[in-house]
Amino acid sequence: MGDRNAPGAMQTSKTPDYEAMVIGAHPDDADFSSAGTSALWAKQGKKIVWVCMTDGTEGSEVPDLADTDLMLTREQEQRMACDILGVQSVEFLRFPDGALTNNQSTRKAIVKLIRKYRPRVVITHDPSTHIYAPDPDESPTLTAYLNHPDHRAAGQIVIDALFPGTVNPRAYRDLLVEGLYPYQVHELYLYFSGNENTYIDISETIELKIKGLQCHVSQLGTETKWLDRIYDRSAAKAKEAKEKKGLTMQYAEAFRRIKLYVPD
Amino acid sequence: MGDRNAPGAMQTSKTPDYEAMVIGAHPDDADFSSAGTSALWAKQGKKIVWVCMTDGTEGSEVPDLADTDLMLTREQEQRMACDILGVQSVEFLRFPDGALTNNQSTRKAIVKLIRKYRPRVVITHDPSTHIYAPDPDESPTLTAYLNHPDHRAAGQIVIDALFPGTVNPRAYRDLLVEGLYPYQVHELYLYFSGNENTYIDISETIELKIKGLQCHVSQLGTETKWLDRIYDRSAAKAKEAKEKKGLTMQYAEAFRRIKLYVPD
Amino acid sequence: MGDRNAPGAMQTSKTPDYEAMVIGAHPDDADFSSAGTSALWAKQGKKIVWVCMTDGTEGSEVPDLADTDLMLTREQEQRMACDILGVQSVEFLRFPDGALTNNQSTRKAIVKLIRKYRPRVVITHDPSTHIYAPDPDESPTLTAYLNHPDHRAAGQIVIDALFPGTVNPRAYRDLLVEGLYPYQVHELYLYFSGNENTYIDISETIELKIKGLQCHVSQLGTETKWLDRIYDRSAAKAKEAKEKKGLTMQYAEAFRRIKLYVPD
Amino acid sequence: MGDRNAPGAMQTSKTPDYEAMVIGAHPDDADFSSAGTSALWAKQGKKIVWVCMTDGTEGSEVPDLADTDLMLTREQEQRMACDILGVQSVEFLRFPDGALTNNQSTRKAIVKLIRKYRPRVVITHDPSTHIYAPDPDESPTLTAYLNHPDHRAAGQIVIDALFPGTVNPRAYRDLLVEGLYPYQVHELYLYFSGNENTYIDISETIELKIKGLQCHVSQLGTETKWLDRIYDRSAAKAKEAKEKKGLTMQYAEAFRRIKLYVPD
Amino acid sequence: MGDRNAPGAMQTSKTPDYEAMVIGAHPDDADFSSAGTSALWAKQGKKIVWVCMTDGTEGSEVPDLADTDLMLTREQEQRMACDILGVQSVEFLRFPDGALTNNQSTRKAIVKLIRKYRPRVVITHDPSTHIYAPDPDESPTLTAYLNHPDHRAAGQIVIDALFPGTVNPRAYRDLLVEGLYPYQVHELYLYFSGNENTYIDISETIELKIKGLQCHVSQLGTETKWLDRIYDRSAAKAKEAKEKKGLTMQYAEAFRRIKLYVPD
Amino acid sequence: MGDRNAPGAMQTSKTPDYEAMVIGAHPDDADFSSAGTSALWAKQGKKIVWVCMTDGTEGSEVPDLADTDLMLTREQEQRMACDILGVQSVEFLRFPDGALTNNQSTRKAIVKLIRKYRPRVVITHDPSTHIYAPDPDESPTLTAYLNHPDHRAAGQIVIDALFPGTVNPRAYRDLLVEGLYPYQVHELYLYFSGNENTYIDISETIELKIKGLQCHVSQLGTETKWLDRIYDRSAAKAKEAKEKKGLTMQYAEAFRRIKLYVPD
Repeated sequence: MGDRNAPGAMQTSKTPDYEAMVIGAHPDDADFSSAGTSALWAKQGKKIVWVCMTDGTEGSEVPDLADTDLMLTREQEQRMACDILGVQSVEFLRFPDGALTNNQSTRKAIVKLIRKYRPRVVITHDPSTHIYAPDPDESPTLTAYLNHPDHRAAGQIVIDALFPGTVNPRAYRDLLVEGLYPYQVHELYLYFSGNENTYIDISETIELKIKGLQCHVSQLGTETKWLDRIYDRSAAKAKEAKEKKGLTMQYAEAFRRIKLYVPD
Repeated sequence: MGDRNAPGAMQTSKTPDYEAMVIGAHPDDADFSSAGTSALWAKQGKKIVWVCMTDGTEGSEVPDLADTDLMLTREQEQRMACDILGVQSVEFLRFPDGALTNNQSTRKAIVKLIRKYRPRVVITHDPSTHIYAPDPDESPTLTAYLNHPDHRAAGQIVIDALFPGTVNPRAYRDLLVEGLYPYQVHELYLYFSGNENTYIDISETIELKIKGLQCHVSQLGTETKWLDRIYDRSAAKAKEAKEKKGLTMQYAEAFRRIKLYVPD
Repeated sequence: MGDRNAPGAMQTSKTPDYEAMVIGAHPDDADFSSAGTSALWAKQGKKIVWVCMTDGTEGSEVPDLADTDLMLTREQEQRMACDILGVQSVEFLRFPDGALTNNQSTRKAIVKLIRKYRPRVVITHDPSTHIYAPDPDESPTLTAYLNHPDHRAAGQIVIDALFPGTVNPRAYRDLLVEGLYPYQVHELYLYFSGNENTYIDISETIELKIKGLQCHVSQLGTETKWLDRIYDRSAAKAKEAKEKKGLTMQYAEAFRRIKLYVPD
Repeated sequence: MGDRNAPGAMQTSKTPDYEAMVIGAHPDDADFSSAGTSALWAKQGKKIVWVCMTDGTEGSEVPDLADTDLMLTREQEQRMACDILGVQSVEFLRFPDGALTNNQSTRKAIVKLIRKYRPRVVITHDPSTHIYAPDPDESPTLTAYLNHPDHRAAGQIVIDALFPGTVNPRAYRDLLVEGLYPYQVHELYLYFSGNENTYIDISETIELKIKGLQCHVSQLGTETKWLDRIYDRSAAKAKEAKEKKGLTMQYAEAFRRIKLYVPD
Repeated sequence: MGDRNAPGAMQTSKTPDYEAMVIGAHPDDADFSSAGTSALWAKQGKKIVWVCMTDGTEGSEVPDLADTDLMLTREQEQRMACDILGVQSVEFLRFPDGALTNNQSTRKAIVKLIRKYRPRVVITHDPSTHIYAPDPDESPTLTAYLNHPDHRAAGQIVIDALFPGTVNPRAYRDLLVEGLYPYQVHELYLYFSGNENTYIDISETIELKIKGLQCHVSQLGTETKWLDRIYDRSAAKAKEAKEKKGLTMQYAEAFRRIKLYVPD
Repeated sequence: MGDRNAPGAMQTSKTPDYEAMVIGAHPDDADFSSAGTSALWAKQGKKIVWVCMTDGTEGSEVPDLADTDLMLTREQEQRMACDILGVQSVEFLRFPDGALTNNQSTRKAIVKLIRKYRPRVVITHDPSTHIYAPDPDESPTLTAYLNHPDHRAAGQIVIDALFPGTVNPRAYRDLLVEGLYPYQVHELYLYFSGNENTYIDISETIELKIKGLQCHVSQLGTETKWLDRIYDRSAAKAKEAKEKKGLTMQYAEAFRRIKLYVPD
């Protein structure tokens, strides 16, 4: 953004504190997408923080729940899941569910957290795919998936926070007063992407992932038949890992991995 | 969005009332893109509703027309066209022409209409393509087409209304008070797409389509030489239907069709 | 947008005054992307105007500079660079750096300038690519480039201004009062694109480009080792010109060129 | 606002077309406040126009009415009342009921109508009083009246439209393109004011006022006992007219009258 | 707002649950203005709820405190004060400190809480006075008090929520889905007013008020000399009570009291 | 706002640099209201800064002037006037004329300038009076004056900037990074007030005031008959000074003066 050797220039730190920050639009997005990876890294002794961008108040089929009650219930469910996974810290930004928007306010909130935790890796939604749809003639019984507008917004907010917000000393200058200085994230992992290039072997943590998901009772109820789908999808991703990268694993989570900084 | 068996859960209706809702940014967008399909289905006794998102007040080369006069003229032209095509109902949302924006206000307006009419199919603009441009070296006499920002906005508003707005009982909860309950659209058709997978044979309704278009005098004047282009394009789409899907038809309208729900 | 033969219709001018308007988000964006082309056309006696959309106040590593001081410094640097390149006119729109947004206010500002200068060609950022990222397994030492949100916004603002804003007599009607009438740009050039189809031979102006860049002391300091990269990239683009188009040149700037109007 | 003799200066018309424009926040506000005056002037052969700023969709005790149905019902009631009173024209601006705000959009809508109708007099809500409250110790059985936020907003919007919007040729310049030129209103009447200085004798039109009010069935139902209050208040205002101004009348409507222009 | 006997009309409840809701812009506003009254009524066995509209993050002389830490500290201080005073419940709306605005979002938040607690009395800031200033010639050593913009905003938000928001079944209709029905507050008390008409004898609770204020360490520190001012002001108000209303008390809090509903 | 003795507390400076900052909505507002006072203080060797909040682009009777041309003309006129009066510095904030709004953006711009210049006195519009209107029966040939919405906005913005913005270290914290620290203005002077309590003798500078006003050719043209009104009004204010305060002067400017800080 400017001359790095100018008098008074502030250098951007590249020394991480946390290993990873996982950012989801709603409570349970991180659980579905990447909890196995979080649990794996946590088992290796690394510090992980999860961030939930919205207040989750649209996440129920029950219309007459009070917003605050639903919000607090879901935050509690998320905290329980994080305990199981070994995630140290959870932050709730409480932007309005269903209306997440990429603007200065949401970008700044993410810049603030990234500067506070200094994660080596940031993991979030891939904002680029809007519709996952098979040809209805070829797959007449399959239905498409419309990517939730909050998911797209969350991914784009994080990317726009990563550059230039987190690294630019003049962006959101009031953060400097609080001691939140420019920091360069090393890697970005995008989940729910159509362009995966990285597979994490979650075979030893898939059970924790399942247990974490089961904390989200308000979302998933108490039946358990949907658990099979988690195993199925994780196995399908492992198969992809074999095909694309020649890697052998039983269960996998898949990401589009992007390098932002390579230490010397 | 949440546990469907929770106490007090509201179920999402999947029973359509109308066959199709066709949503365009401006009066005449639906006429150009899909009037043949609407007329065909109407001839088959199906109920069709058209929705026009903007007030159309920028649609004239005459600067000194009053906005209200132009709006009412165009709405009248649209109603006349719908009469000819057999479309039962037309709704005008009157958002400002040239400034259509994907936000909570526009999404909610669409959610409201979808819940009111419960269409099996929703037909609208494909928001994904921004520029249709041939290589200027290869086609030096062809000019590109920049997709109107209102067209992109309209398509994205509708998609973001379809999920999660129309199906989520907690989205726009005041609609429940008016008796507008969650409803699941079965299919989405996108027009002006670059990814067509579905062709509708409009050979028996192309004359109605032409007559409908001729109602839009404020847009097209009273000359008729542009009519040939309608026949040419419809024939070209029919040719594509042959090549891509092996279907034989004289005139076609083309869509990217997306299945959102498959009844048992 | 409407019947061109209606009584009172205002015709859209297609007669250019300037050869090119180059629009960048920040001071120095045009210098990096297309200064060689501007200098070349200026040497041929053509009139060029540059437009800088933001105030550039986030473009420094020094946090305690006053915004106004940095803005004026950068505008002065840009004016000096334009003098060297032979660019006749520079306009500064001063929208807030780091927060450029595609809305009616920014679109209108561009419509106003295009109608004022009537450029044959508009050159700006390609808004479509968000992330330039190699596979980290294949290129473990390469880092990705996240396209600056202001760059994407600038490109999209310009495209949405080109159609329908600049050509529609009813868009931003108050401009008519100032004598700023509808005008049709002939060609659009997008830089920093991933889809280049046009290469301009800047071999005889690359030295001017370097000198222009050196005016941006607040951004680039006074060291000169980064200059090599300009030569390297320009040579790489020339190599692409050979491969893709069979053209021979030593240094090139590359664009995605889009024809909007072909004179008879 | 500027030098009136400058070359190219546009003069502000002071020649009225309509005698009065009555502007209320909701349908029925003009009926309660000043229908007797409108009817009186209409009987004298003068042209009157009424303007309703909001869509009236919060004006019912029935929660499950559709907004559009309620809006159209109330507009029809208002048109019927105007027919009875002899008011020539009614305009509905349809800003959202309960959320009327003084901003560029609402001010411009009023400027547009004033320039279109050129009323000699504008009649609207007095925005200055927020709370009408007796001392609860002195009047323990009387309750206070909190002025509706839409009423305050409507009055302030109109006043800010009157100066400088309606008279300034550079305000909302696109209106010039439509032939809506600067115009100077002669008098402003404010109703529901605490500072009345003008009393209109409505003795010969109070019956029409009552009949007009009875058109607003959605608001007032079909009972008639509230009619007595209209007579009582009108008589009380007539008494005030005697006390303050020495005028004798049976029934009166009261206003704070403000002169904005005195013809030679 | 509409015909109360219409079919389907929803009646407005007038039966209170809580005795009082005290609404302040910042933590400690209610403590300074009316804690003695709250404590008195609580001692009489009545239920009281306090509401704090902003997050209080600008309430410190220390620039480098993190917003969240300051917010949580102040909320904890407020909860401790409420415990001492006997206030049952505290709600924190967390709108941004220093930027409180009267709009649909803030009004709705207050409507929601009033419908939830159904207080007989609402106590809040008087929004009408902007500047308390003696003539500088007459009182050369006295300084004026500029009313905090958040205080004015808070008062006006509450008043605009009281009418028509809390009583109108069609305002914020989604609240009906949560079981939050129209309710009519009986009395409004405005503090920091210039028009007091009601004095509450706080002689037996002024000690509790002092203790509550002492909880706000982040605002008032640990010195105690400012406590004298509380006694002085309360005695001055008691003196006013004598002069204006003939009431005898040692310490008083003063309000502008407004009756909104008188039970039969 | 908080404990002034807390660890890390930042003290608010009370040491002025400039004697006065005069803030007007448009170029020429300060000239009409208080230029004599500025000139007087400047003659006494005191430093004065003027601030113009809007871009002045609606200040002309000529509709087809380009906004930028009019803005630059008026700024040049203002600079010439300031030269004549001895005012050292002029700042132009360029908010849109006719649409000045009291919000975080405008308040912050004023806080920034006050902290930069540290004026002992701030002089600006009195926002409290909306309409100056005689009774039309008593003064049938006098017309009322509706206070320009920009004037009211400007005054309120300044007052809300003075407290708490300029004095609170946590307000607009990014200003601290630029070295703009909390500062306490000593006195506020409001002009165009209805509540004057302070009269400045401008007898020896009224000629300079006239000359300054004559710089505003775009507003006042080149005729001079309006000059008499300046003398008349200034003499009338001097008469008021005699009546209210017993002061003898030939020409005066009048203000509502408010003390905000009294040095020891």
